[in-house]
Amino acid sequence: MLSKKNEQYIRSLSLKKFRQKYNNFIIEGDKMVSELLAQFPDQVERIFAVPLWINQYGHQLKKSGISVQEINERELKKISSLKTPNQVLAIVRQWEPDFQPDQLRGSLSLYLDGIQNPGNMGTILRTADWFGIDWVICSPDCVDRFSPKVVQATMGALFSVKCIRQNFKNLSLKKLNLPIYGAILKGENLYNTNLKPHGLIIIGNEGQGIRPDILPFVDHPISIPPHHEARGTESLNAAIATAIICATFRGANPTS
Amino acid sequence: MLSKKNEQYIRSLSLKKFRQKYNNFIIEGDKMVSELLAQFPDQVERIFAVPLWINQYGHQLKKSGISVQEINERELKKISSLKTPNQVLAIVRQWEPDFQPDQLRGSLSLYLDGIQNPGNMGTILRTADWFGIDWVICSPDCVDRFSPKVVQATMGALFSVKCIRQNFKNLSLKKLNLPIYGAILKGENLYNTNLKPHGLIIIGNEGQGIRPDILPFVDHPISIPPHHEARGTESLNAAIATAIICATFRGANPTS
Repeated sequence: MLSKKNEQYIRSLSLKKFRQKYNNFIIEGDKMVSELLAQFPDQVERIFAVPLWINQYGHQLKKSGISVQEINERELKKISSLKTPNQVLAIVRQWEPDFQPDQLRGSLSLYLDGIQNPGNMGTILRTADWFGIDWVICSPDCVDRFSPKVVQATMGALFSVKCIRQNFKNLSLKKLNLPIYGAILKGENLYNTNLKPHGLIIIGNEGQGIRPDILPFVDHPISIPPHHEARGTESLNAAIATAIICATFRGANPTS
Repeated sequence: MLSKKNEQYIRSLSLKKFRQKYNNFIIEGDKMVSELLAQFPDQVERIFAVPLWINQYGHQLKKSGISVQEINERELKKISSLKTPNQVLAIVRQWEPDFQPDQLRGSLSLYLDGIQNPGNMGTILRTADWFGIDWVICSPDCVDRFSPKVVQATMGALFSVKCIRQNFKNLSLKKLNLPIYGAILKGENLYNTNLKPHGLIIIGNEGQGIRPDILPFVDHPISIPPHHEARGTESLNAAIATAIICATFRGANPTS
């Protein structure tokens, strides 16, 4: 049974202020939660699941000492943020990987400057994982990566991509001698740019782009050129632009 | 003032069955509606707007004979599907451009096979416009391109991309001698494929990919290779994959 107190607590975690207060967040659905248990069992605080799921994973959970509470479909529906709740919901402690700016050396990494849309943020993390991006550094005003919509859109990449929150100025990039690329509307044609295998790619906010005090740090302003037959569209979606840039970097520097 | 009848009618257009019944749909917000008026004034059936917007566009509207009804912010909120309603809402007649399969000859076009997510559909249309894709052909089971979420995600590309609904078998592609590319999980490396400037690119459903009875028509199965350091992510989002493929086609065949 689901207590009123637990229901309220879980629902409160859909809001950033409560996620920050408790340092917790929610992961939902059979696939995501089983991946969570395989990769970060120590981060799991508590699991709420329907009998079907408990029958399948109960043995494994007993061994790991994770507390599981049985609820029914109706109760799951009350606490789920999914359109179609899927068997299980976990309360999970937030994590942030240890980071030193030195680790950006010899890496291809992303700096997200004020990405606001949760779907974009989640999709960027999923794409970054696909392209083996080493670090995704989010400006402090980016949408919280532990928000339910971001978590769902990552499709599990949340577990594999090293993602941190850091102010750009604190990265001390000058010492690193790392090429810094920035996605802007009128930059050098991406396809004609000498794309190094390592560097930092800055992606700006959906509406405003890269903020003015960061722009001077960009050594290589790059653009995805529209086709000459492009008609009314003024820009690409931020997650789309990120993906095309990452793909072009990896295509220009094949590893096999 | 907004009558109860109009309120109900506009709200009903958020559902596909009523959009089909009346052959109408909704476009919202200052930017989208002003673009609509510039490009497709004849499609506009009626406009509901706050006084601020009417003051700005009233003169232009009088000339075109479009019926405008003044409403207040509270009324706009009742009929808007946006989180932040923005001044104006238009009831618009649906359109479909004239299409003959012959027009695919000498074109780079997309066939969307069962795209379900409205955000993906809208983003694909926006991206297709950027890359000057000639036709976007949707299988009959794709999400309706006139649904509010699709319309918003297109960011205006709805007006410029030629998008039709057509069964794959009706395209009579054999006669056209057009290369047919298909995005699949284990195909030829996109970066090593000879990408022609013209052809048809098939993009499959988010979960299932290209359906089995269409797969045999694919001459060139292509994949976006994951980086060797990719970790858990099993696939890319459908709109992301579409964008990377379109960008790579255009990058391989520069026009200037």
